[in-house]
Amino acid sequence: MSRRTFLTGVAAAAATGLAAPAVAQTSAQVRWRLTSSFPKSLDALFLTAEQMAARVAETTGGEVQIQVFAAGEIVPGLSAMDAVSNGTVDMCHTASHYYLGRNPTFMLGTTFPFGMTTRLQNAWFYQGGGNDLLNDFYKQFNIVGFPAGNTGAQMGGWFRKEINSVEDLKGLKFRIAGVGGEVLSRLGAVPQLIAGGDIYPALERGTIDAAEWIGPYDDLKLGFHKVAPNYYYPGWWENSTAIHAFINRGKWEALKPAHRAAILSAMSEANTMMVARYDAGSGAALRQLVAEGAKLKSFPIDVIEKCFETAQVVLAEKAASNPEFKKIYDHLLAFRRDTLPTYLLTEGTANNVHAHLQRKGLI
Amino acid sequence: MSRRTFLTGVAAAAATGLAAPAVAQTSAQVRWRLTSSFPKSLDALFLTAEQMAARVAETTGGEVQIQVFAAGEIVPGLSAMDAVSNGTVDMCHTASHYYLGRNPTFMLGTTFPFGMTTRLQNAWFYQGGGNDLLNDFYKQFNIVGFPAGNTGAQMGGWFRKEINSVEDLKGLKFRIAGVGGEVLSRLGAVPQLIAGGDIYPALERGTIDAAEWIGPYDDLKLGFHKVAPNYYYPGWWENSTAIHAFINRGKWEALKPAHRAAILSAMSEANTMMVARYDAGSGAALRQLVAEGAKLKSFPIDVIEKCFETAQVVLAEKAASNPEFKKIYDHLLAFRRDTLPTYLLTEGTANNVHAHLQRKGLI
Repeated sequence: MSRRTFLTGVAAAAATGLAAPAVAQTSAQVRWRLTSSFPKSLDALFLTAEQMAARVAETTGGEVQIQVFAAGEIVPGLSAMDAVSNGTVDMCHTASHYYLGRNPTFMLGTTFPFGMTTRLQNAWFYQGGGNDLLNDFYKQFNIVGFPAGNTGAQMGGWFRKEINSVEDLKGLKFRIAGVGGEVLSRLGAVPQLIAGGDIYPALERGTIDAAEWIGPYDDLKLGFHKVAPNYYYPGWWENSTAIHAFINRGKWEALKPAHRAAILSAMSEANTMMVARYDAGSGAALRQLVAEGAKLKSFPIDVIEKCFETAQVVLAEKAASNPEFKKIYDHLLAFRRDTLPTYLLTEGTANNVHAHLQRKGLI
Repeated sequence: MSRRTFLTGVAAAAATGLAAPAVAQTSAQVRWRLTSSFPKSLDALFLTAEQMAARVAETTGGEVQIQVFAAGEIVPGLSAMDAVSNGTVDMCHTASHYYLGRNPTFMLGTTFPFGMTTRLQNAWFYQGGGNDLLNDFYKQFNIVGFPAGNTGAQMGGWFRKEINSVEDLKGLKFRIAGVGGEVLSRLGAVPQLIAGGDIYPALERGTIDAAEWIGPYDDLKLGFHKVAPNYYYPGWWENSTAIHAFINRGKWEALKPAHRAAILSAMSEANTMMVARYDAGSGAALRQLVAEGAKLKSFPIDVIEKCFETAQVVLAEKAASNPEFKKIYDHLLAFRRDTLPTYLLTEGTANNVHAHLQRKGLI
């Protein structure tokens, strides 16, 4: 079949609207199941996996079919990595730091308190050797990992009362997971682990005093502003939240090179698309939140400084007791030292000029 | 041939180190030539096109072969789009604003004075409808365009003398292209168009007073700091410089869907990889520049404000005289208004906390 005939054939198949998918399905060489750690309602997170799978199917002419399942459909959201590790599913879309209970090093794939923002984190992953280092670590779990999404810098969460000093953190029952909670607990806060759907009633009843979630786009859906209107920034424990694709190592190695390349390319694309979706949607969401009563407040700078100081202690302890953590953490710190000053000079100044013009009402 | 046999075959071919490329070449269905607007010496720019082409070859199992030529090898750097438009070459890697002489609207694909930084620009391209709008415009030139790289926010350039007031711009012979030069000319500067290789001697002899190029990573190679040590920021005329892939429209439409998907995915990946390369390399470059005598200076805020005010006039004039420009410019401004406040609140605050900790010597 000549190239022209082939192209005409595809056009004809596309025109029927049915033949093309059928062709794609019959030609599948790889059929994978992907379990997401996210529910369909968190659409910026969930849809990215579906679009990534669709792109791979397209690029491989239907040879690689990845079926996407929401959290809980076949695997609980927080067990996604384990299911990939033991081969129950082939791939997952998740946050590496969900698995810090297995080894705190998992955290460093996602973010760390006062860590780099998304642009520099991507530079670390892709050009700084970060992703290779992480894969050296992930290997023992029988997985390979790649960035495949990002929320960008998150908000600090919803508080029933104002935080005006470090003193106000004492006894604060704060729904916050991971190392951010660990840092705050050293300052007297009482971190709580509560699933997404249970946060609103707990805030409403006063069982908890505060809750952090993601940012305006997702937070709006859960309505926290109605019961805990003080919306704090910055969410210094998640300056950038990388979302990973984990793939069973054996399945990954068995792929033919073209299929591996298609998935690599689609994961990188997913990484960019997720943050673009958040950026495009968060403005309207924040305006609606404020219109409905959310009060934007910055954590006081002395509170931020105390949290930074405490975070250094917590992270240094982890590094001291875990050589895998130390290796990657030291690498991250060195990369931040190397790149941050120039980033702040160029990108940071551009942002500050925008902020200045905005304050003057000029843009 | 079973999948297992096929995979073994590929592994065997890879082991010989020769057979695999031969297989790839014989299976080529699409052979394109890509002309870059950049010389090989600007490696962050040039290599991205080579890596994009390599990815497409990999993903399509060698079915799509894109041969990459540096600026001037087959087409002059600033004629790349025209060569794609008339079908002399199939694809190019260039900056849309190089073609603003044909129509000022081309500029808006790349950046505009005080425009959005890279993250929000990507949100506009991919999720805000920006890329579709640009393609409505590009259609008349018989091309389709997609973002395929970015330099991030640029520096303001190299000045023999300090700029302490708007007065200091009067008569300033400044090597700067495009609309940034147009804005500065309204304030008395005299924009100069000088090719990269001729800038250094012109600065040295004092034929020109200042020159802007890109940022530390590329500027270091040209050695401007030795003859014009005042290195100013921000480069407000290029807060984000998108690099485009333009493809001949007929060639694009003739591709089979899998090939088109492979190229789309690779262009998005290229977009991320280029800025990651700049971010990873710029820190060391800036340290070397400063060690060799570069003096970092911020344009005074009243100079920036005056430039902003003047830019609004210049851009409004273009919008008033060109409906295509107006349509896209208005869309960009609306998107910036919609997304910028939230971006500055989250990402901007994270950067400002980093800057605060840096000033205190803590990171």
